[in-house]
Parts: sequence; C-alpha cells; structure tokens
Amino acid sequence: MTKRWARRVEVATTEVSDERLGGIDAWWRAANYLSVGQIYLLRNPLLREPLSRDDVKPRLLGHWGTTPGLNFLYAHLNRVIAERSQRTIYIAGPGHGGPGMVANSYLDGTYTDFYPEVSRDEQGLQCLFKRFSFPGGIPSHVAPETPGSIHEGGELGYSLSHAYGAAFDNPDLLVFAVVGDGEAETGPLATSWHSNKFLNPVTDGVVLPVLHLNGFKIANPTVLARIPEEELAALMEGYGHRPYIFTAGFDDESHTSIHRRFASLLDEVLDEIADIRGSAAQVDAESVERPRWPMIVFRTPKGWTGPKTIDGNKTEGSWRSHQVPLASARDTAEHLHDLDAWLKSYRADELFDEAGRLREEIAELAPPVGLRMGELPEANGGLIREDLRLPDFRDYAVEVPTPGGSVTEATRQLGTWLRDVVKLNPERFRVFGPDETASNRLQNIYEVSGKQWLAEYESPDVDQFLVRKGQVVEMLSEHQCQGWLEGYLLTGRHGLMSSYEAFIHIVDSMVNQHAKWLKVTNHIEWRRPISSLNYLLSSHVWRQDHNGFSHQDPGFIDHLVNKKADVVRVYLPADTNTLLSTFDHCLRSKQYINVVVAGKQPNPNWLTMEEAVKHCARGLGIWDWAGTEEVGTDPDVVLAAAGDIPTIEVLAAADILRREVPDLRVRVVNVVDLMRLQDDSEHPHGLTQRDFDTIFTTASPVVFAYHGYPWLIHRLTYRRNGHANIHVRGYKEEGTTTTPFDMVMLNDLDRFHLVMDVIDRVEGLGARYAGLRQKMVDARLDARAYARKFGEDVPEVRDWVWPDAKGAVEDSAAATVATGGDNE
Amino acid sequence: MTKRWARRVEVATTEVSDERLGGIDAWWRAANYLSVGQIYLLRNPLLREPLSRDDVKPRLLGHWGTTPGLNFLYAHLNRVIAERSQRTIYIAGPGHGGPGMVANSYLDGTYTDFYPEVSRDEQGLQCLFKRFSFPGGIPSHVAPETPGSIHEGGELGYSLSHAYGAAFDNPDLLVFAVVGDGEAETGPLATSWHSNKFLNPVTDGVVLPVLHLNGFKIANPTVLARIPEEELAALMEGYGHRPYIFTAGFDDESHTSIHRRFASLLDEVLDEIADIRGSAAQVDAESVERPRWPMIVFRTPKGWTGPKTIDGNKTEGSWRSHQVPLASARDTAEHLHDLDAWLKSYRADELFDEAGRLREEIAELAPPVGLRMGELPEANGGLIREDLRLPDFRDYAVEVPTPGGSVTEATRQLGTWLRDVVKLNPERFRVFGPDETASNRLQNIYEVSGKQWLAEYESPDVDQFLVRKGQVVEMLSEHQCQGWLEGYLLTGRHGLMSSYEAFIHIVDSMVNQHAKWLKVTNHIEWRRPISSLNYLLSSHVWRQDHNGFSHQDPGFIDHLVNKKADVVRVYLPADTNTLLSTFDHCLRSKQYINVVVAGKQPNPNWLTMEEAVKHCARGLGIWDWAGTEEVGTDPDVVLAAAGDIPTIEVLAAADILRREVPDLRVRVVNVVDLMRLQDDSEHPHGLTQRDFDTIFTTASPVVFAYHGYPWLIHRLTYRRNGHANIHVRGYKEEGTTTTPFDMVMLNDLDRFHLVMDVIDRVEGLGARYAGLRQKMVDARLDARAYARKFGEDVPEVRDWVWPDAKGAVEDSAAATVATGGDNE
Repeated sequence: MTKRWARRVEVATTEVSDERLGGIDAWWRAANYLSVGQIYLLRNPLLREPLSRDDVKPRLLGHWGTTPGLNFLYAHLNRVIAERSQRTIYIAGPGHGGPGMVANSYLDGTYTDFYPEVSRDEQGLQCLFKRFSFPGGIPSHVAPETPGSIHEGGELGYSLSHAYGAAFDNPDLLVFAVVGDGEAETGPLATSWHSNKFLNPVTDGVVLPVLHLNGFKIANPTVLARIPEEELAALMEGYGHRPYIFTAGFDDESHTSIHRRFASLLDEVLDEIADIRGSAAQVDAESVERPRWPMIVFRTPKGWTGPKTIDGNKTEGSWRSHQVPLASARDTAEHLHDLDAWLKSYRADELFDEAGRLREEIAELAPPVGLRMGELPEANGGLIREDLRLPDFRDYAVEVPTPGGSVTEATRQLGTWLRDVVKLNPERFRVFGPDETASNRLQNIYEVSGKQWLAEYESPDVDQFLVRKGQVVEMLSEHQCQGWLEGYLLTGRHGLMSSYEAFIHIVDSMVNQHAKWLKVTNHIEWRRPISSLNYLLSSHVWRQDHNGFSHQDPGFIDHLVNKKADVVRVYLPADTNTLLSTFDHCLRSKQYINVVVAGKQPNPNWLTMEEAVKHCARGLGIWDWAGTEEVGTDPDVVLAAAGDIPTIEVLAAADILRREVPDLRVRVVNVVDLMRLQDDSEHPHGLTQRDFDTIFTTASPVVFAYHGYPWLIHRLTYRRNGHANIHVRGYKEEGTTTTPFDMVMLNDLDRFHLVMDVIDRVEGLGARYAGLRQKMVDARLDARAYARKFGEDVPEVRDWVWPDAKGAVEDSAAATVATGGDNE
Repeated sequence: MTKRWARRVEVATTEVSDERLGGIDAWWRAANYLSVGQIYLLRNPLLREPLSRDDVKPRLLGHWGTTPGLNFLYAHLNRVIAERSQRTIYIAGPGHGGPGMVANSYLDGTYTDFYPEVSRDEQGLQCLFKRFSFPGGIPSHVAPETPGSIHEGGELGYSLSHAYGAAFDNPDLLVFAVVGDGEAETGPLATSWHSNKFLNPVTDGVVLPVLHLNGFKIANPTVLARIPEEELAALMEGYGHRPYIFTAGFDDESHTSIHRRFASLLDEVLDEIADIRGSAAQVDAESVERPRWPMIVFRTPKGWTGPKTIDGNKTEGSWRSHQVPLASARDTAEHLHDLDAWLKSYRADELFDEAGRLREEIAELAPPVGLRMGELPEANGGLIREDLRLPDFRDYAVEVPTPGGSVTEATRQLGTWLRDVVKLNPERFRVFGPDETASNRLQNIYEVSGKQWLAEYESPDVDQFLVRKGQVVEMLSEHQCQGWLEGYLLTGRHGLMSSYEAFIHIVDSMVNQHAKWLKVTNHIEWRRPISSLNYLLSSHVWRQDHNGFSHQDPGFIDHLVNKKADVVRVYLPADTNTLLSTFDHCLRSKQYINVVVAGKQPNPNWLTMEEAVKHCARGLGIWDWAGTEEVGTDPDVVLAAAGDIPTIEVLAAADILRREVPDLRVRVVNVVDLMRLQDDSEHPHGLTQRDFDTIFTTASPVVFAYHGYPWLIHRLTYRRNGHANIHVRGYKEEGTTTTPFDMVMLNDLDRFHLVMDVIDRVEGLGARYAGLRQKMVDARLDARAYARKFGEDVPEVRDWVWPDAKGAVEDSAAATVATGGDNE
C-alpha cells in the first residue's frame, strides 16, 4: 500500500511496462466496444452470430464522438489510481459520453454491483446494450443513474465548478475533471478555470483539469481547437495553470506508443501534484501560496477509432462523429457492413471469454475494490453525509415583548446563528456567495471564519476577512457559487448560497438541472439522500428602490415551483425569529431545494421565538392579535400576507381599518411556507381543502399581499373553493429608483391601497366609506409628492409602529444599531 | 476633416500639447465634480454658499468607486474622436458608474439636448444633481435614460457581447468597451473575450476592450487584480489580444504626466487599429485573417481622487469607495467637512463660469456635433433602423390539400424563407445560435450565407459553411448569442436567435434585463423603437425523448410572461404555414420579445396558407373541420390545443371520439398566440370576455392540451367565466429517455388520456362509455410495453393520420424527405 499524493518513483521505480500498456489498450478497446455496442446493438452483443439488421436498434440514439477519448483517460487513470492508492473521482464534462462512463463502470465491476441484472457475462452484455438510451432503460448522457458520477451531462458548462466544489475540504481526493471543448465555450466554464484561486493546497483536494480538445461540436469546430497552440497555452497560463499539451491519433503512431507517452505524461503530472502537495505540507494552511497547478490539453480526433469516412465524408476527426455516425446501419447493407467492421476492429474475442466475461488479465487493471471510480462514496455523497451539528436556534431569538415591539435586521441575526454553525462544522459547511455575504448582512460569520482566498494579498486594511482557509467562498459569479455548492453537497457536505433576489435568475438553468438530479435520485435506491441546496435571497425586490428597476425581480420562486413538488420548498419568513426557525429546518433537510427570501433592513419583529416555531410548523396561520374578528363567525374580510414587506403593509392596513372602520371584522393571515397554499394532492406541504377553507373562508373576500408576482398565488390556489374571492397584490414589474414606500405604491401593494381594496371588495363598505377611500387616495398622492420633494418617505410611514407596540419600540430604539452602507 | 481609422500621424504631427492635456484634466475634474455632486448634493450645486447639511441629500444613493476611471477614459476619448473623426460609442460595463456617464453627456451638451430642463447653467446643475437616484428622477446606474448608452448597467457580464453585437456590420464604428474587473469574474464576460474570433476586420467595426482594473468589488478584491501581471497578460494573449497595461494613481505622479502617458498610449493603440484596418483593406473580406486586436488594462485606484481615508480607514484604492464613501455627510461635521474638501479639490470655479456654464475652453474638447458619444444614432438604434426587406412568406407555403394531408418539417421550411430574408438583407439581418442552426433545421440559410468564423480553418470537408463574412454566427454559449443579438438590435438592426427550448433558460436573467430595457424605453420619448428580439425555440420538450430529462423544460414561456405585457409575445404555431405567417409577423414587429416554439420533426400540416394567415390574425380559433358540433348549440366538450404536439394529440383524440362516441358534440380549438387567453385588461392581445366565452363556452368542460407547464394556462385564464371548467394537460416534469409517444403518455397528454379526460368530464359519458375508457387504459399499457420491447412507438400511433387525409398523405409520402441525424 502506498501513500496518497505520492510520486511514482516512491511507488514504482521502473517505466510502465509494455505488458501493462497492452493491458491499458485492451481495456480501452473493451470500453470502446461496449460503447459502440450500447449505441447500436439490440442483441447479438458479442457478434457470435453474423451481424444482421435485426441486431441493430430501430432508433439509434446516443453520442459516439467524445466517448473514445473519455474511455482512453479512464483506462489510464485506473493504472495510476491502483499504483498510488489515490482516491479519485472522474467528472465527465462532455456528458454526451454516457456510454463510455457506463462501459468503464461495467468493466471494473461496479455497474454490476449496483445493477445485478447487468451481470458479467453475455446475458449481462445483452442487457447493458439494450437498456442504453432505450425506453425503460438508462439515459444516453452521464446521469444520476451512472455509477461514480456527480455530474449530469445534459446541460454544459459546470464540470469545473462541480469539480472544485467536490475538492473543497476533501484533502485526500483527486478530482479528475474532463472539460469538453464545446463546453469550454460556455460562460460558466470560461470563468470556472479561476477556481484555482480559491483552493487551498493543504486542506482541500486537488483538481486536475483535462481539456478534451476533440475539435468539434454538433456542426462546428470548437474555438479552442482553432487558435494557435501558443495562444491556447497562454490562455491556460493566464488562468493560472501549467499546461501539458498531449496530441495523438492524427497520424500513424501506434497505440502502444501513444499509451506510453500518455502514461508517462500522467505520471509526470501526478508527480508534480505530489511535489506541490509535499511542499504545501511543509507550511501551514494559512501560509501556503497558490501553486501553479498542472492541467492537460488532450487533443485527439473526435470519434477516435471510429469509421474514418462514411459515404465518402470524413467522419473520424470531424463533427460527423458527434452522434451516431452510421445512421442507416439498419437500413443499408453498406452501413451494416461498416458497423460490423468497426465493432470487429476492437477484437472482442481477445477481450471477453467464452461466457462473455472480461478476461482476468484485463480486469486486473481496475483499481482494487474500494478505489474503483464507480464506487467512491464521494460520488454518492449521501453515503458519507453526516448531519450538521446545529446550535439551538432558540438561543438566538430576538426579544419581542409585544408584536411589533422590537426592530432588528433579520439576516444579521441569522448571521450570528450561522457563525456558530460555521464554527461547529469546520470541515463540512460552507457559505457561497457572489460578493454579497456582508451586503446581505451575514458578516458576523467572519468572527469565526474568513473568506477563502488564494490569490494575492495586498494589505490587511483592504483585505479584511480574507484567509487562505475559510468557510466562506466568494466570487462575482453566481454560476461559480452555484456549481461549487452543488459539488460540495453532492459529495456529502452542507452549505448555502446567499444572493440578491433579482440576480439568482442567472442560475435558473443550473437549478433546473439540480432539481432534475434530485428528482431522479429519489427513485434510485443506491443513491443516498444529500443535503438540501439552500438559498438565502436577500436584497429583495422591495428594497431595491435605490438600485432601481434592473435589480427588481422576484420571479425565481415562479421558476422553481415548476419543478417537481417533492424537491421544492419556498419560505417567506416575516421576521427574525421566523427566519431563524425556517433556516434551522432547511439545514436539517435533505433532497430539497429550499428558497428563503428575507430582507436585510431593520424590520419590526412580530413573533416571539415560541410563536415563530409554531408558525413555521404550521406554515401559515391566523394572527389573532392583529385582527378584529369575532369568535364563531367568518370575518368580513381576510387580509393575508406572504413576505416581510407585505406583512408590514397588511398590518398597517389592519391598523387603519381598526381605527377607521371599527365594526369591520378583519382576519389577518400570514404565510411563511408558500407551498401550503397548494392542494395537498399537488404538493406534500399543501393544506387540505378543509383547512384552507377554515383559514381563508369560502365566501369572504381575501386581499392577499404577496412578495412576488401576484399570478403565482392564483396558480397555487386556483383549485381552492374560495379562489374567486382571492384578490392578490404583488410586484407587477413597476419599479424604478425611488423610496421604499414608493416601490410598494407603484405596485399597489401599499397599506393605503390595501384599505381601498377592502372597501371595494367588502359588500356595503363602498357606499359607507367613500370618504375613507378618498383619504387613502390622497394619502398616496401626498406620499408620492413628499418623496419627490425630499427624497425619502413621509414620516407617517417611516415611523409607523404597530399601535399596541409603541412603548416597547421606544424602549428598544436606543438599542437599535444604526445602519449605514446598506445599499449595495 | 480626417478619415476614420486614420493613424495619428496622418491627422496631427505633433505630440499632444500640454495645453490640450490641461484641457483633458479640466474635463476630467469637471466630470468628477458633477459625479460627486449628483451623489451628494440636493442644492447649492456650485458651493456658492458654504456647504451645509441641508445641502446634502437625506438618502445617499449611488456608486462612486468606478466613476472617476470612467470619466478619465471619456475625457481622453473625446480628444481622439475629434482628431480622427472616429464614430465611437462607449459601453460602460461597470454600470454603477451612472453618474459619470451622465456627467460627461451633460458636459458635451447632449444631455441638455435630450432633457432641456437640465440647462447648461447653475439651475440646470441643480436639476441634474437632484434628479440623480432620486424619486421621480433617474436611476443610479447607466440606464436607458442615459444618452449614448445601449447597455443597462444593473446586471453584470454582458458589456463585451453587447459591444461585438454593435460592431457587426458597422464597419466605421469603434466600440469602446470598458469591462469592470468585478464583471470580468462572471461567466458570460469570461467567454465573451473570444468574440474576436467572430469579427471581420473588413466588414465589421472594431471593439477596443478596456479592462478597468480598479481592484475591488463591493467587499472583496477582484480576482484579475490579484494575479501576477504576467499571468494577466498571458490571459489576454490567450484570449487573442495584444494587451497594453496602463497603471496610474498609486503614487505621486502628476496628473499632467498621467494624462500624457495615457494620451500617448491611446494614440498608439488607435494607430495600431488603423494599421490593422489598413492591412485588412488590402485583402477582401473572405481572405482576411484574424488580427491580434489590441486591448488596454487600465489599472487605477477604486474611487480615484476621492477621500484617501475616512474615519481612519483607507478609502481611495479600496472597496470602501464602492458606493457612497462619506455615508454620514449629513449627520457628522467631520464627514460634511470632508465632503466639502473633496468637492473643492476639483476647483469648480476654474471649470464653470459665473452662470454655471462649462467654460468655453474646456467645452471645446468635446467632439463636434454629430460625433459626441451621447448622440450617436448607433446608440439609439431605432433612429437608423430600416424595415427589413421581406420576401412574401405566402410564396413559401407548403401544400395542404386537406387538413393533415401533407407532412413537412416546419423549421426547415422556415429556413427556406429565412434564407431569402438573409439574402435580401445582407448588412442588417443576422441569425445567432449556440451551434444549433442546422440541428434546428435552418440549414437552407447556408445556400446564401455561411457562418462567420475568423478562427483557424482546417479543410473544406470538415469546415462546411464556415466563412469569414457571413450572416450566421454560432458559438456554444447562449449568453454570447443573446448578448450579440441584443447589441445588434440596439444599434438598429434585425435578427433572431435559435436555441433548444430547455437551454434558453441559460439566458433568463439576460432576457429579464432586455425586457426591462424595452419597457423603460417605451416611456422615453427620444428613444426610438428597435426591432423585436425573436426566439425560435425548437428541439422542444416533446421531442427530447432521445436526450432525456435534462433536455426537457418548457418553462421559458412562464419566465417571460412575468414581464410587462406590452413587451412580451408567445406563439405556438401548430404547423408549417402557421409558423411562416407567425415569423413574418415577428420580423416586422418592434419593441417586443417574441418567443416562437416550433418542432423540427416531420409533422402533419393542418392549414393552407390562407387559413394560416387568418388563424394567426385571430390568434386562436375553432377548427370546424375537426369537430363534431352542431351549429347553434354549445358543444358537449371543447378540446383545445396550443403547440404542435398537443395539436396532434387533440386531433387524434377527436378522431377516436368521432368514431367511438358519434353523438358527442366536440369543438376543437387551436391557440397560436398564447396571450389571447389573457384578459384584454391584462394584455393588449387578450380576448374580450365575450369572445372568450363564445369560443370556450361558459359551461362546457374544456380539455386543454398545452405545450408547457399546465399551470400557466390557469394563470392566464383564472379570470375567465368558464375557468372552473378548464382542465389542462401539459408537461409536469415527467420525462426520461424514451420514445416520443411515451413522453406524452408520461405526462398524460396523449390522445388516449385526453379521451379518458373527456369521458370523465362530460356528464353522463362515464357510465355509458366505461368500456371505451378501459380500452384507452389498455391502449396506453400496450403502447408502453411495445416501446420497451422494440424501442419505438406502436405503429398505430406512429402511422396515425387524420382520417379525412389518408389518401392525400399517401400521395405526398413519396415526396417526403427522409430525416436522419435529427437527434442532436
């Protein structure tokens, strides 16, 4: 047994032998054979009968082009993993190469471990070939179903972010990350090379990026394959890497020679990594400098070893290899013949024995059990995930002597609790954010851990909270933060991402893919549940009055609720204690995407911690103290709120109504768990019809002040009995640079308009309270005029306090910290 | 008058004089003064009275940090524009620098041209200062309200894509693109440097990127400022540029010296560009090679010329300058004093005369009228936009002898029409796409124009349709395609983007910003309407059975309909002629975002061109020929469809019902313009209640087969009288790698399930047709079993033809082109 991060010379003194190289080649041929078999063959897997059109699948679906390169790398990795006992996971950025990853996992035995029906014999091969990209079978891309994978290969661009996320706090792990040259053109991938400025060479693992330069996409050459090699090398150096360029397959060089060159290169690169790790081990994690990590450019023909030409057109080494090169194998004798020749070129009889089992001498190349890439628990993170050690959030409660009786910044208090979560979980909890951790008021975390930063340092007065080893990671790329967090969670750890609400749309498509991953893994028995992906969205739509229209968008919630109900949760806590209780719940949960939207500005507190816990458990509830209803009868009107700012406006409206329409029976409802609004047949959190009817009534008008786009409430409640009575106010894309109260006025969500809505909707009020209605209209005009004159909100609104809480607020005012610099 | 792209030596033989440098410095000081004034001052704009706290705005909102750098560059650009008569637009990537761009536009007079109330005197200054980031005023970022801008500065990452989009087909235009080093960390920006591989040095304009390395973001250093300079230089060389690194402001160097150095550098760089253009002019557009374009790294302190320290903390040259450095200027004497000193450091009395007008000798630095950056029509594209020359789409009609009587690939036929659009509009129409133009079947375009590609060429057999000058631009980055297209449209041209439906979510956040831009410009009188942004989304959710779950997402429509109704249009044409008519409409429209979803697979045609035109004009309609209703009475059930695949399933269900339930009165409705479903008070395309009731009835059950997430139909129709009767089938996130028909079955959108829905919902049918219902259940089971056995759909479904069309289809079968390679 050798030690990890060892130089080859410490584990083996001789060159890789020809015999060994022959074994690698045999493995590669076997993987290629199995890949082609998966794409084309419905039966006759070992060609023990002459190939006939009926052996060929009726629909040929899959991607050949990138597969042989992935297989080549997998075969070589097996050797070095075995020799160096190096824990390694393989991330296949060119996710189209699904058949290759499946083939290799089958060859090393892990596939059969997970799917015993795919046995290691001819019948198993038959089963393997048929199931690929077939109804009831497995996807054509690298997918959750693929052993050893944490990376869905459908959408492109995230392989390196995932790789670095996996490497954080995994000091013994090598993440071998193959980047496709198509993928390399995407924005997220282009910036993810800079991840090396965030990796600590002592306490984190190592990422070895391999740029698989196979030259073509679906129908075009790739950019990076068509720039001078010195430009490509400069680019990689500029990204902070030492590039090793390996080219093969374009001439007559023998495979043995190619394997020898690559084996030697891989040893050189891993030795270099071992040296870097060895030097890093001499210094402590806080003094270590960013090394120049090696990376490999692996230039080989697309569709390598496949048909050179088809129908007279160049195929190997061109985009024509991207998918299924012999599209008419079932329909033309010529294509069938070419397929037969292609399959036979791998000499399967040398690879598989009579029974169809991989020959022993080839199988020996696989790493020992426990190190095979298909089985590493890091690639099935739930297996090694341990619950977080969570401090009791109740100990972080803010005092609420009476509803509205104190004022705090919700996310700042959350930051205090998170500080202690960070402290108690130094190696398995991280906070990711696009330069907004402090802006979102989580800076108390810095009392125990800084921001991990391996780029250059300037001076302490400007490099506040930067450290070489820390649990906060910030880069101005939502894509990076999301990808890192996904990689971190998928390998069994915990974390959260904080972001401005509007700009989280940047990762809409990434979160789609993660939601799909979760949905699928819920149905794969051997995949164990991972920690939920938690978002804290602050700097939300209602408090972007200063940054203006471009920063106002509450639609991420809408985006997410289209995903499967069993993976999505949305919370809109109205105050600090509710936020604490909510987040505690989120950090304990698994297999969800939790979205929590909460403001960072000073805000009244409504619930004591005890009340908040109950409120969160119910998900929504009637706030008796705020209403004026009588027991035993339905109220005249229900005022409902979801979100911190809507809650304030609803309560201020209730305040006005209490004073001005004293005989009106008002019920105030607050919603923290948005999914409660849905039918219980649609969402596991959904209220029963009966409970919904009890709370919202079936006949009284409901005026609902909602944080986001109002239509979402209709979409969630359209099956409810009282739906026709629900009138929703929310953000309707009216915003600009103005004051906070003008923002709610522009969208008719303000207290005055809510009172108007009540007057307009409760039968009989309109006639009796025309004067009050006019007063509300005037109050809006006055507020607007005041803002335009003085640049801030009318004191009447700014200083509004829930009437029963006036004394308490005055008491606490002295204690409230003044806020500055709060408008990033 | 000198010529464009001229070397300085051709226009002026002497060095830039000290006097001239002094003028540049005065301009810079004036712009800085006006920037600080905008952020802080409510009144007393020229400090003609001692500064008091009441002069300071109550809420200090804005961003100082990046502004002085932007101002410096603007001042220097003015000189070279004037000297070289160089048409130039300025893209401010660091969009926080709003006050700077406004200040410069005010100084050169263009701001007053657009906003006469902001006059060029003390009163105008007062007005300018107050309106900045103030209720009823202007945004704090570079915004549509800012003269000369095509680039909203809120969300970051798109400045270079916009710049290159502006440069395409604008051979006389210099696009000066300032990239913030925060922005540079985003994915989209990181890949957009590669845009230079797509720019033709003969027929396109020039982009001069300036990386504004001011070192800090909100609370962190930037990555690119904290790597060794040789690494940064290598990165820029790797991106294909020749970098010029300029550093200033970190020592005692005099401003005159700094200005001299930068003036000289700018001349050198513009001379180099002139040389490149000169050499390029010697060869034709198809022989020209990609030059190594220069770029500038502009390293200056963040908050340059602002307070060195505040409250003892380093401010100039740190993240503390990001926003409003003196946050307590209104509240503490010390900050007020510092603000006073800061403002006075610019010596406003030397810059503005008694009346408050910029002194003549400084104003002279501005380029002549016509070339001032604030007024260039390229930055207000609607001014120079000309309608497309469109071939009559009716001439491209496919024959439809009877409904369902012919089969074509809709997007392929669209490609034929687009080919001629391309041909007729060689300099103002482009098609952008992430490597999917051919995959989406638009390859007929290549008959007249190839894909513009300035990277290396290999050989003609693999470099098909690559040209150095072409109207198709493809790179595997949706961000790039979107950014280029936006830049192209904003500068007065036309285009479209084609993409896979699922992955267009990648640009969710970008399209948000464009929608916001359109909404705001609709209310700015001097902004003229630009061409609509057109999406063709193909390879849609129902035909991603082969790529599987990761490629299935129809939610972009949902995302878009949250935007303002007057900028969003969604079309779901059911066949080829409808698609042609729809797209003709889209290419004629202005100020919209048009989303068109259409399949690329062979599909039955339902409408002749004459019928399609009428259908598109109405947006939705009853297809009499498909139904079985009687005139004068409401039908028993309405079967509605939106989308090509739902239309097939609805018609197949209608076919079954016709045969099996002959006395059932079925109405078939087809929806092409989705916004018709909304209330006419909600959307300009919305149907009146009366029309809606006439078509959908108020009492009959409606079974609605919809292309996307079913909830969207409820969200659009919840105000409709008959809403409670509408039952929607659509994609409910159930998908995998399977057959096309299994995809619709997994989501209960298939013909058999629709028949079951009808039986379940029409009163009295359940009891009478229990047998038929069971038959449907069995048909589904059979279809699933068949697919799992054979890997394709049951012949009964695969070969289904609308019964009245059988003969016609057989006639046309011979003419149908076989499709291969259709599953990218």
